[in-house]
Amino acid sequence: MTTTSDAPGGTHDLSVGMVGYAFMGAAHSHAWRTAGRFFDLPLRPRMTAVAGRDPEGVAAAAERLGWESTETSWRALVERDDVDLVDVCTPGHTHAEIVIAALEAGKHVLCEKPLANSVEEAEAMTRAAERAAADGVRAMVGFTYRRVPAIALARQLVADGRLGTLHHVRAQYLQDWIVDPQAPLSWRLEKDKAGSGSLGDIGAHIIDMTQFITGDHIRRVSGRLRTFVDERPLPSEHSGLSGTAGAGTGRVTVDDAATFLADFAGGAMGVFEATRFANGRKNAIRIEINGSQGSLAFDFEDMNVLHFFDGTDPAETGGFRRILVTEPGHPYVGAWWPPGHVIGYEHSFVHQAVDLVRDIAAGTDPAPSFADGLQVQRVLAAVETSSDTDSWQEISA
Amino acid sequence: MTTTSDAPGGTHDLSVGMVGYAFMGAAHSHAWRTAGRFFDLPLRPRMTAVAGRDPEGVAAAAERLGWESTETSWRALVERDDVDLVDVCTPGHTHAEIVIAALEAGKHVLCEKPLANSVEEAEAMTRAAERAAADGVRAMVGFTYRRVPAIALARQLVADGRLGTLHHVRAQYLQDWIVDPQAPLSWRLEKDKAGSGSLGDIGAHIIDMTQFITGDHIRRVSGRLRTFVDERPLPSEHSGLSGTAGAGTGRVTVDDAATFLADFAGGAMGVFEATRFANGRKNAIRIEINGSQGSLAFDFEDMNVLHFFDGTDPAETGGFRRILVTEPGHPYVGAWWPPGHVIGYEHSFVHQAVDLVRDIAAGTDPAPSFADGLQVQRVLAAVETSSDTDSWQEISA
Amino acid sequence: MTTTSDAPGGTHDLSVGMVGYAFMGAAHSHAWRTAGRFFDLPLRPRMTAVAGRDPEGVAAAAERLGWESTETSWRALVERDDVDLVDVCTPGHTHAEIVIAALEAGKHVLCEKPLANSVEEAEAMTRAAERAAADGVRAMVGFTYRRVPAIALARQLVADGRLGTLHHVRAQYLQDWIVDPQAPLSWRLEKDKAGSGSLGDIGAHIIDMTQFITGDHIRRVSGRLRTFVDERPLPSEHSGLSGTAGAGTGRVTVDDAATFLADFAGGAMGVFEATRFANGRKNAIRIEINGSQGSLAFDFEDMNVLHFFDGTDPAETGGFRRILVTEPGHPYVGAWWPPGHVIGYEHSFVHQAVDLVRDIAAGTDPAPSFADGLQVQRVLAAVETSSDTDSWQEISA
Amino acid sequence: MTTTSDAPGGTHDLSVGMVGYAFMGAAHSHAWRTAGRFFDLPLRPRMTAVAGRDPEGVAAAAERLGWESTETSWRALVERDDVDLVDVCTPGHTHAEIVIAALEAGKHVLCEKPLANSVEEAEAMTRAAERAAADGVRAMVGFTYRRVPAIALARQLVADGRLGTLHHVRAQYLQDWIVDPQAPLSWRLEKDKAGSGSLGDIGAHIIDMTQFITGDHIRRVSGRLRTFVDERPLPSEHSGLSGTAGAGTGRVTVDDAATFLADFAGGAMGVFEATRFANGRKNAIRIEINGSQGSLAFDFEDMNVLHFFDGTDPAETGGFRRILVTEPGHPYVGAWWPPGHVIGYEHSFVHQAVDLVRDIAAGTDPAPSFADGLQVQRVLAAVETSSDTDSWQEISA
Repeated sequence: MTTTSDAPGGTHDLSVGMVGYAFMGAAHSHAWRTAGRFFDLPLRPRMTAVAGRDPEGVAAAAERLGWESTETSWRALVERDDVDLVDVCTPGHTHAEIVIAALEAGKHVLCEKPLANSVEEAEAMTRAAERAAADGVRAMVGFTYRRVPAIALARQLVADGRLGTLHHVRAQYLQDWIVDPQAPLSWRLEKDKAGSGSLGDIGAHIIDMTQFITGDHIRRVSGRLRTFVDERPLPSEHSGLSGTAGAGTGRVTVDDAATFLADFAGGAMGVFEATRFANGRKNAIRIEINGSQGSLAFDFEDMNVLHFFDGTDPAETGGFRRILVTEPGHPYVGAWWPPGHVIGYEHSFVHQAVDLVRDIAAGTDPAPSFADGLQVQRVLAAVETSSDTDSWQEISA
Repeated sequence: MTTTSDAPGGTHDLSVGMVGYAFMGAAHSHAWRTAGRFFDLPLRPRMTAVAGRDPEGVAAAAERLGWESTETSWRALVERDDVDLVDVCTPGHTHAEIVIAALEAGKHVLCEKPLANSVEEAEAMTRAAERAAADGVRAMVGFTYRRVPAIALARQLVADGRLGTLHHVRAQYLQDWIVDPQAPLSWRLEKDKAGSGSLGDIGAHIIDMTQFITGDHIRRVSGRLRTFVDERPLPSEHSGLSGTAGAGTGRVTVDDAATFLADFAGGAMGVFEATRFANGRKNAIRIEINGSQGSLAFDFEDMNVLHFFDGTDPAETGGFRRILVTEPGHPYVGAWWPPGHVIGYEHSFVHQAVDLVRDIAAGTDPAPSFADGLQVQRVLAAVETSSDTDSWQEISA
Repeated sequence: MTTTSDAPGGTHDLSVGMVGYAFMGAAHSHAWRTAGRFFDLPLRPRMTAVAGRDPEGVAAAAERLGWESTETSWRALVERDDVDLVDVCTPGHTHAEIVIAALEAGKHVLCEKPLANSVEEAEAMTRAAERAAADGVRAMVGFTYRRVPAIALARQLVADGRLGTLHHVRAQYLQDWIVDPQAPLSWRLEKDKAGSGSLGDIGAHIIDMTQFITGDHIRRVSGRLRTFVDERPLPSEHSGLSGTAGAGTGRVTVDDAATFLADFAGGAMGVFEATRFANGRKNAIRIEINGSQGSLAFDFEDMNVLHFFDGTDPAETGGFRRILVTEPGHPYVGAWWPPGHVIGYEHSFVHQAVDLVRDIAAGTDPAPSFADGLQVQRVLAAVETSSDTDSWQEISA
Repeated sequence: MTTTSDAPGGTHDLSVGMVGYAFMGAAHSHAWRTAGRFFDLPLRPRMTAVAGRDPEGVAAAAERLGWESTETSWRALVERDDVDLVDVCTPGHTHAEIVIAALEAGKHVLCEKPLANSVEEAEAMTRAAERAAADGVRAMVGFTYRRVPAIALARQLVADGRLGTLHHVRAQYLQDWIVDPQAPLSWRLEKDKAGSGSLGDIGAHIIDMTQFITGDHIRRVSGRLRTFVDERPLPSEHSGLSGTAGAGTGRVTVDDAATFLADFAGGAMGVFEATRFANGRKNAIRIEINGSQGSLAFDFEDMNVLHFFDGTDPAETGGFRRILVTEPGHPYVGAWWPPGHVIGYEHSFVHQAVDLVRDIAAGTDPAPSFADGLQVQRVLAAVETSSDTDSWQEISA
């Protein structure tokens, strides 16, 4: 296999083919388009092809998002010789099949989170990734929030021992987009497509983020899932987050909200909450970590800020420091603008693309790996089982 | 020159006898001294006597805190004819005996929280209060945070239906005063005196506050208690929160931190956390409640503020309103200062005294009642059992 | 003269006589009543007498606020042998006469701010204070905000060099209580009684606070006064802040808002703003100071917090520290409650009483002195002249 | 496989030539590259050519930023037939010559702010723009902060009368990048290149922003400029914001900080401050506006939020609303991501490009016009004269 293709108009390209072009597809397209404009990349991403089943839809998406060509089947895209990397932005139930095929075709893979809709699928994908890795093929799962500079800085501070022994992890991912019972039934509310609801969609993020920041992993959970609104209007058309109600109703088959207690392997106590019913909270990812030497707090609604309490400051002048994470020495952010010129949501996708391209060029394994994605999947499954059985559940290593 | 007088034995006095004079004793003394200066009271509190075992200690306390006389046994105080109300500010393991004796002696009782160190004691106290009530004797448990104006306003907004159906209750009580492993073993860390640790001491507050605000109660829990530091230096002297380390070490027999999931009877999902190990958080009581029509958020570190999201505001101009709870129309606070002139921690003790005096004068039952205190005790016990048995526990009605 | 009187029931009392009993009278009464309950005082304040012209009003105030006796003329109070200290809480136009008489009668004086309604009066008062000081009589002006713990801490940090050379001082005192044009004409809006409007009432505070924190003084100003609403309904009765509108209208003769640029003697640039028309701001005193080594920020609406930027922190972990000023090592606050148990507006009056009592006992001159008050008066006058003449005005030393 | 194309010379392209490629050039390039990916545009921006004097520098910039070709003289670029719009991103002293030549060559112009370094230049440019407008040529000045969604929303709320009559405008633009006296002398500190210092560089933004939001203009000012550090190390090489110190020192010929009082034509009082010496403040643009019906507050460090106080809310539930300006109905932002997925600094440049392209296609005059830029220039000049003469200065209409 060849890692890079010699496309017309440039050597050292990394040719990307993307499957799916909705919300995540737009974010990934932006990342491929932008990464090389702000970061020095060893390979130049080329937006070779985008695949989607609807010929008109995919053509319009290619035009708008800037892809050179289209395919109406993911399989055709995976089989193209001029594609080096397959970027999977489809709903979770389709991940396993596409990803395994791509890996077997020798393509690097970037797969949106959650890795899959079940532990079994995630295991198969992880095995496929391990096999492919032996041939130099790279696989990464798209937990992009790791690449928010404030989160990457949080990781550094913990790794540097600035928090000491960790005692508490509290994490919330709060949205409110279906608090209205008349919000229509999108695919994200159907278990066969989405796998789970708030738990897998947004709870997965805070599981990954807290495990990433702490460098630790969850070993047991006691969880509670709830569906507040069981029946919703069918959408007038299939339209993701923004659908309008049509005729008839359908059954919500995923959780509206999930809460769980967690024990981390290293001893910290965790409290997690993911919900789409937190009225007034739009995308509030809040993480606070308390350790013997210090603490950290983060809220995505103010994503350029990390609050850091340094327990070694004198009591009289100590306090949570509002670090505006826009300094040249901070992770990622120096490539953008001068200090204080804040960045936004999609920048973490750019950082993800940068890291992946660099790993591919360097021949190193990217993180988060599929094994990381599988471990998150196991936590999700354990929470679900816990809720079903009213019992604590262990997460197998 | 005209002289105002405050004749001993005046018919309109309410004669108070207080047991205990440490942290809570100082707060209650301030309340009795101050209530009538800012609020119109139907009875004038008179600070008749304070009781404590150490003659010198209690004499000094009476002098400093402004009590007219002292007793060196609580029983002597309870038996005094010139005491109308017994205010119990001692550690939890002494509550049942003192309170029951006082009620049986026909004294009104204000009992600090938690009501007792066990459900059994709390039940006995509640029965005693019910018996005494038949004779017009009033009993109240001191969950003072209900009387923080922002919390009282929160209760009003929920009761007025401004939040609609409640979906989420998240509550944290975060302190850090024993995060240092060398902090000495105070009585608050000994189970035989304190009953429990963070759970009973501060977790009890957020249980009461959320039940008060929601007008609902917790019906089942899954909890987790942890003691991060098992062994601590013995204090050089018995000195509550501020002891310095002496010789030898002793065993910590209570929890350092407690987390639990809760189902409310009315359907809301709860997540609770109480800890003394949240580095950098001094007395952070944070409560957020999300309902179908709106949301509320509160943090005691900024206690004069209530954040209110009104879901009926247009999306374009909606947002959490930072209500500075210092307006004349807000609960309690109009008696103090003009708008914007914020109040502090001890004001809620004054409000508690005001409400209790008014109830006594009016012959009405004060809230929170001993039955309310017993219900909190049952939640505490259920959390503890849940943690011991790794199972969900129901709270008996 | 005798500094302390031997009142019945106690030696070592400091006998206080207060003139005026409205908003400030209530705050001062609370302070005298409370100071000795939380702080160790060398003299015990005794609330001997309160004076006011209306016999019924003053009697009711004495009863409510806890004064032992009443006088219906300030002169009678000043002449009483059993009064050691005269506490002047009347409107500014009465200060000079009362204060000078009290000082000449050998009474210590606490005078509410602003010291007077004119520089001439303030000068006369300062001369009287200097004469009296020769006989051991103490005089203090009531800029209480200096005694907010966060402000006292700010002063310490500047004095300790933690901010380096000061470049910027920006201060705002924002209220909104007369933004409604129908708010009635209180005495605070009449120049003959109040001296000035927002400038003298609240602008005076931020002048004193910034001069106190910086340890520097303003040497020239360019200012602008405005009256947005010239004519207002007369109040139905004379009732301070809370009057309701009666028949007829009257002319507003003071400023509704004042802004000014300032040069500090030490080189810092100042920007000041005081207004009663900042809709939604109730008592927002905001001060930010930037120096070569660090910065400070304060907002009274969250008065227990001081934000401190330490420029010597590494850029990657630097940020404004949210110091919760409730630690035992912080100024004043350790006498109250454990860390995190926040205090309120009136506590600074208690601190003022404590400091004054200690100075009287120790025979030391209290701060802020009348000379400090006079200097503030000169700044106020310079701002007014500047506004009248559209020119920069120097403040004479 | 279907291939999308972007044929050279396509009839629906808007061909852009950019002059300058430093900080602003990177931001503008991003805008041209991105605008059509998220917004529906009537013309497709084509990044035809970039000009710069250094052949290697401009070639590297073209490669990195994505421009099709290069020119080493702005004049060559202006004369190219295949350029429709000239985007001027050079220092202020070069604006007039380039812009006037471009307009005379019939090119649309986007000119970075401040429009020029003097009123005379700005007047000449404005006259040139007016002449060109007669031929359908469009000219816009790049006050991008108008296109921050929260600022555009602020404008809407004022225009809709939600604030009533405006009383107060307070605005600060706080940076700290030269607080270190050893920060080298960049071109931004030299008057012949930069025109002015903090005043023109960042003060210009808050002048434009507040005039935009209020729909009003400043008519007179009293200002104060200061240079705290007169002499600085020469940079080791010419490198804008991020230079390192070289040998020798040079004289700072612009202001480090500027403060001024302002009267708005409509009656509001303004207080402005722009500084590069606000230690710890990186890019804090803070604007607060108080009116008879409500208030607004904004801080760029949390740029997705607008605080809005609606004075018509009942006092008990009123408070500043923290509006997260990410709703579909908010200006601009709906084109990006779902609610709560915040945007960053450079997005306003994209919005600027979108608006300009739409105006060009529609044949309408863009805002802010050169006349708007000239008016800002006049305010800047008036502040400078005011500071030099210690007098209030009128701004000619």
